[in-house]
Parts: sequence; structure tokens; C-alpha cells
Amino acid sequence: MENADTLITNGLIVTMDHEMTTITDGSLAIRDQQIVAVGPASVVAERYTADTVMDAAGQIVMPGLINAHVHTPDSLFRGLVEDLPLEPWLEKVFFAEQEFVRADTVELGSRLSMAEMISGGTTAALDMFWFPERSAKAAKEIGFRLMTGPIYFDPVDIEKRGFEGRLERGRAFIEEYLDDSLVVPVVQPHWQLTVSPEHMREAQTLADEYGILLNTHLCETAAEVSATKEQFGLTPPRLLDSLGMLGERSVLAHCIHLADDEIELLADRGVVAVHNPISNMKLGDGFAPVPKMIEAGVPVLLGTDGPVSSNDLDMWKVMRFAGLVHRGLHEDPTLMPSRDVVKMATIDAARALGIGERTGSLEVGKQADVIMIDRDKLHLTPHYDVYSHLAYSVGRDDVSSVLVNGRVVMRDKELLTIDAGQVMAEANDLAAQIADYVSAGPSAEAGSDSPYSDM
Amino acid sequence: MENADTLITNGLIVTMDHEMTTITDGSLAIRDQQIVAVGPASVVAERYTADTVMDAAGQIVMPGLINAHVHTPDSLFRGLVEDLPLEPWLEKVFFAEQEFVRADTVELGSRLSMAEMISGGTTAALDMFWFPERSAKAAKEIGFRLMTGPIYFDPVDIEKRGFEGRLERGRAFIEEYLDDSLVVPVVQPHWQLTVSPEHMREAQTLADEYGILLNTHLCETAAEVSATKEQFGLTPPRLLDSLGMLGERSVLAHCIHLADDEIELLADRGVVAVHNPISNMKLGDGFAPVPKMIEAGVPVLLGTDGPVSSNDLDMWKVMRFAGLVHRGLHEDPTLMPSRDVVKMATIDAARALGIGERTGSLEVGKQADVIMIDRDKLHLTPHYDVYSHLAYSVGRDDVSSVLVNGRVVMRDKELLTIDAGQVMAEANDLAAQIADYVSAGPSAEAGSDSPYSDM
Repeated sequence: MENADTLITNGLIVTMDHEMTTITDGSLAIRDQQIVAVGPASVVAERYTADTVMDAAGQIVMPGLINAHVHTPDSLFRGLVEDLPLEPWLEKVFFAEQEFVRADTVELGSRLSMAEMISGGTTAALDMFWFPERSAKAAKEIGFRLMTGPIYFDPVDIEKRGFEGRLERGRAFIEEYLDDSLVVPVVQPHWQLTVSPEHMREAQTLADEYGILLNTHLCETAAEVSATKEQFGLTPPRLLDSLGMLGERSVLAHCIHLADDEIELLADRGVVAVHNPISNMKLGDGFAPVPKMIEAGVPVLLGTDGPVSSNDLDMWKVMRFAGLVHRGLHEDPTLMPSRDVVKMATIDAARALGIGERTGSLEVGKQADVIMIDRDKLHLTPHYDVYSHLAYSVGRDDVSSVLVNGRVVMRDKELLTIDAGQVMAEANDLAAQIADYVSAGPSAEAGSDSPYSDM
Repeated sequence: MENADTLITNGLIVTMDHEMTTITDGSLAIRDQQIVAVGPASVVAERYTADTVMDAAGQIVMPGLINAHVHTPDSLFRGLVEDLPLEPWLEKVFFAEQEFVRADTVELGSRLSMAEMISGGTTAALDMFWFPERSAKAAKEIGFRLMTGPIYFDPVDIEKRGFEGRLERGRAFIEEYLDDSLVVPVVQPHWQLTVSPEHMREAQTLADEYGILLNTHLCETAAEVSATKEQFGLTPPRLLDSLGMLGERSVLAHCIHLADDEIELLADRGVVAVHNPISNMKLGDGFAPVPKMIEAGVPVLLGTDGPVSSNDLDMWKVMRFAGLVHRGLHEDPTLMPSRDVVKMATIDAARALGIGERTGSLEVGKQADVIMIDRDKLHLTPHYDVYSHLAYSVGRDDVSSVLVNGRVVMRDKELLTIDAGQVMAEANDLAAQIADYVSAGPSAEAGSDSPYSDM
């Protein structure tokens, strides 16, 4: 017999491996953060013992979900500004953020959002926000696989570090986490309308130097496309291409307003697109041409976007919207089959984000990002096809237990690495201040400072 | 002091009354099924005592949600057939239903679905299915406000009663429930392609005789519109109008493929439309022109449709899809404001379905259909605007307690009037038989019997 740290026994294992193997009565052994065995329960039981044994009878066991686009600390502002046209909406959100985004609030918002994501079965996220070192700190403490890093954003210096300070801190962040087992450094210029071409190039150079991902926004609104053409004489994808920013390490959030030849360009360059259907609809942005991108060979991943526009961080809802809305648009019920949607949120995401060797499936040698889902629920009864349930019926509250990097971070619905009650109380206290400040309202001067006012 | 049966104390009360009154620290008194007081906690506490006191501190208290289109017992078949084009999908579903839809299975499926709806905060539904007397029986036992009644469907006689037997049973059903406090009788011809014009007229005559609702499907697919034009020389709304079937007691599910002049016709006649966005997308039907219908003055309600296409019966998800998808389609983030979406699932639904005197809001004199929602959740933190939370973040599992017609049917997540474990076990047993039967597959002969084969 060999010792493992944790055994997950007798579950319906959905591995998401190349052959889409499922094991009806399966077990999983974890040692030193890694999966050391996955197979029929009887076989694993013959070979492994462990101090921690998690009974998965009546449960689905699968890899954790990957949220490929989020602004994590924005949860502090969710629901603050609603039902407005995009410009005044951004203005008001930005007015609040400028006052309240600080290192300490970033850490608080990160903790709130990561606790929410873990409790709903999301174990990894590609995050973009100010003070990434504080989100990374929270991720290490709580146990969450966070991809983040230096942000580039010209109009305001929220981090109050100046240009040189920012460069220095950015490089230090990358150096600190380059070999980390949990935090993955990424370079993040915000957007071609908020980062100058020179700073875009500088960001790309930094990403290339370390061979890491560059994460930015692309073609979210029709107004953005017009403004970019007017300012630079090129559409957003052509502009980024002219700056050498489209390649296999480029992750582009949204990708909505794209011409067919631009989809081909993205496919040729090997970029990764992230579809954020809930946020995009909420803001009236339109719909990304997901079936066309997939057909052209662009990997399409799924994200919530920040909770200020998505409200919650529920990847099950994102999967459901993504799986259904394109069927409606094309009047074709064969688009986006359930198992493909589950892949987009797990193994496809891991591979496209360069962490496919670590996570995205339950296979020996991978780090153990594992979620358990209680099948004994009214809305999951009866049981026919597991992928149908995962794509269309499972919700955040069905997730019972979660492991990240081999560490049990939620067991039987109880978060083990964070005091959820305290985080909620702190967030509500801060929100009372934010609500007061916002109801006093931005002055006319404040409005004209908006980085979005040129749109 | 007066005695009440139940007091709900110290909650954030969202009344959904005409003035959209909310009470930050409010209480509700219920006696003999009815709401006898709603107001500030201190005022209600001075006047009422009760044996059952439900503490709503940290909770939202609001009227139960109304699912305006569902085929309740279909939950037995959810997830059985997925990711197929509409025709073979219907064929396969119908093949299973023909074999397994019986009076006893209707009761089982109804119990499963009603338990699911209650646990997610839905307290009333407009249901259409075979053997409605068995669904009504389940509703009375469990405590669920069910609108249902005789179904008209020509191609097969699943109830095996023959034409005369069906007429007799239909009338008996209406007579039995006409003055019931919980079950509301409705006449339900299935669809203009499955019910002959003569039987449609007969159904309308029956509804008119008793002054009750007539519930049918309209314009779900483009193929349906073509087939109706070919068969009758009229589009579906014009055909129904020619049969005298469009009026203020007409409820039309789907309403997707409508020309502008047909929307005007529906508005002129005063009909009620039901939007089922999740099912419609799943089946590739397209999108109902909801903003146009609302602008024209057609009341638009929300439904899940049957779980065979919607998978679950979660009205929160329907609200979220309905609230967001039209913003995306029109690229307008001011459409479908959050409080309007909440109205569509509560007071608007009650009024349009003719039960506005009984339910849909928390007001003195109404029957008590009340749900309590736990606000101390990560995804509901912080608290800014309650309607934003209700439309965009609250989910089925946040519902903690439910009253229907004054009766506490769920308390602190525990269902009190139904054994959920037993219902799930029975449904899973039946599903094993269904799966075996379906995997053996329909014969060529069975296929040609399909009532949908003329589409």
C-alpha cells in the first residue's frame, strides 16, 4: 500500500481527459499537490491509503472550472450602478473606483470574489486589476489558482507609483511568481483606447521577455471600433497586429465586433478569445461570433467579466448562457453541444492559457484542482447524461467540496481557508461608505476626467 | 393583541405593490391563508402574536415567483435527449412520452417538479400536460398554486379516454376546481398544428362558458408558421383570430415569429404572451420580440417551459436570461430594467393570469404566497439595490423558506409537505426504465406516427 494525502472515493468521475473518460464508481488519490491515481474505486483502494478520505458517493467529481476573464476585486461595486447606458454607467463606476480602489480594498475584494468562486466550483481565474500583488497574496493564502500581473492603463495612476515605479514593480511581480505553483504572472495592458501604442509595445516586450501571456480587451463595443479607427486609422485587431501583439500568448477578452477577415486574422495568429456573454448582454455590447471563431480555429474560452457588470461570478451560468444563446441567434439547436461547453470551461481553458500541464483535467501528474458536485438534488433528478447536467442544470450551490493544488479549500460546503462571514461584514461596511459617496454624485469636472470620455 | 397563524418578522420586505414599496425592517402577519398585516416590524409586533414566528433578519421577503408556462411532469425526461435538431429531438422525446406518460407517472413527475419549484421560490405555475387531475391532486397535497386543466391534442389519445370521455372529464375538472383556493382551472388546446380548428373552437367555447383562461402555444418556430400558412392559408395569429381565440383570457406561449402587424393584433385583442427564453434558445427557436410586444402593450410573462427543453425549473435563471438577452440583441443596456423583470415574474404575472386578487404581491387581503431569501451570501455581498440582486444575483438555493396559500411548505431549506428523497428515488427508478427503452430506439413505424411529422 502507498500513502496519499487525500483520497476521493466512489464518485462519478468526469476526467475531461483526451478520451473524455468517465468512471462510474471511481476514486482519485492525491499526494504532494498532485494526482497520483485516478481509476475504478476498487483498483485505487487496493493501492492507496490516506489520512483524508472524502466520500464522493452520489457525487460528480471533475476538474475545477476556469474563469478566463474577470476583474476580481470589482465585487465590492456589484449592483451599485444598474440599468444605464454604457457611457454614464462607466462614468459612475469609475467615479467610485477612483476613490475606493486601494491596495487594502483590492485585497478585500479579491478575498470576497475568490471565496465566491471557490464555493461555486471555480478553482482558477485569469484576473486583471490594480495592485495585482494583493490579489496574488490573497490567492496564496486562500488557495486559488490566479493568473494576474502588472496592469497598463494610461489615463490615471491609481496605484500612485508613477511610470518608473510601475515598470519596476511589474518586473518584480513576474520574477516573484514565475516558478510559483499557484500564481501565474501575466502582462495586462488594459485596452488600445486606454494604453498608448508605445506602452502597448512595452507590455508586449515584457511578456515576450519572459515568454508569458499578454491579456487585453478587444472589440467589446461598436463605439470602440469607430474610435480606434478614427484615432489610429485601423480597426482594433489590425492595430494590435501592427504592434506585434497577436500571437499564441495573446488572450483577447470579448471579441464581439469582428469582421470575417479579422476572425481569420485571429485564427492565423493563434490568439485565444474569451467569451463573456453575461457581461456583454448586460452592457448591451452585442454577441461574440463564437461559432464562427470556433469554426475558424480560434480557441474560445469562457469568463464572467468583472462582477460590476456580471453581478455574480457563477461559471455555471456563463456556461449555460454561452451554450444556449448562439443556438437562439442561429436558430440551430445543434450548436455548442453540452460536452463542448464543459470543455471550454475546463481542459480547453487550461491548454489555451498555458496551464494545461497543471490543470483542466483529472489525470495522473496534474496538480489537483478538483470539485465535487452533489447529484442528489431535485433539479438534477433523474440522471441520464452527465454532460447535459453539467451544462444545463448544475448550479454553484451543488458544489460540495473543492480542492485547489491538492489543498482542500471547501469541504461539505464549508470554506476552510477563509472566514466568509468576516469578509462579507468588511465588504458591507465598505459598501456603506461607497454608496454614500456615489449618491453624492460625480461633479461635472470629475466626469470630464473619465478615461472613457473619448469614446 | 390579535392572533395570527404565522408572523414573518424583521425582514427586508419587497411588497411588489403598486408603489413598489419596500420596508427595510418589516413584518408580515398571516391568518386563515391571508395576509392580514404588512408593515414596519415594530407596528406589526404591537398588534399581532402567532404560534409560528419566522425570523427574517438578514432575509428578503417577497411574493413567490410565478412560472407562466411549464409542462410539469416532463422533469422525468430532462436531459434524456440533447443536442439534436428539433425534429429528431421531438421524435425521440415523444417516443419516450408515449410509452411512459401515465396517470401515475404524471403524478410522480408533478411532485418532482413542484418540489423543485418550491425549493427555488416558485409558488405558482401555469401548467399544461396530460392527466391534469393528477397534477392538481399533487398540488393540493404539497401546497402549490397550480393553473391547469383539460388538454386538447388530436394525434394521440394518451389519456385513453376517447373524445367523449375527454369532454366529460374536462368539464368535471373545471367544475371541481372552479372555486378552489389553490388550483385554478384552465382550458388547454395544445397547438394549431395538433388540434383541429373544430376542436380549437370547442376548447374556446368551454373556456368562455366558465369565463376561464385558454392556454396554447403560438409561433414557436419558423417551420410552424410555414406549415400553418400552407395548411390553413393564414399565419398562426390570424388563424387563431379567425377562430375567435384571441382575447383577454388567451395566454400564448412563445410568440417568437411574429410580424409587426401581428404584434399589433395581439395588443388589440388584449392577449397575454409568455416568454420562455431558455427553452427557446435551447431548441434553436429564436428570440421573442419582447421589447416590441411590451411597447405595443402586450403583457409579457416569463416561463421555463417543460424541463425536457429547459432542463431545470429555475425562474431566477429565466429572469436573468430574459433581462439580459434583449439588451444584447438590441445593443441597448437600458432595456428590461431589473425591477421590471421582477414584476414580470410576480405581480404582472398574477394580474395577467387573472389571479391578481389572490397573489403576486404582499398586500393585506391577498393569499399568502411568500418566499424568504437569505442575503448573507458571498454572491449577494455587498448590498446596494435589492432589485439588482433579485434580477441578477439571487439563485434558487438562496431561497430559505416558502409559504403557499398561507401554509409553510419549506422552512430553512427543509421541504415540509413532500419527501424529496423518496420522490427522487422513484424518479430515478423510472428513469432507468426510460433510458433502456429509448436506447433500444424508435422503430421506423413509430417515427411516422409522430404528431410532429407533418412539420
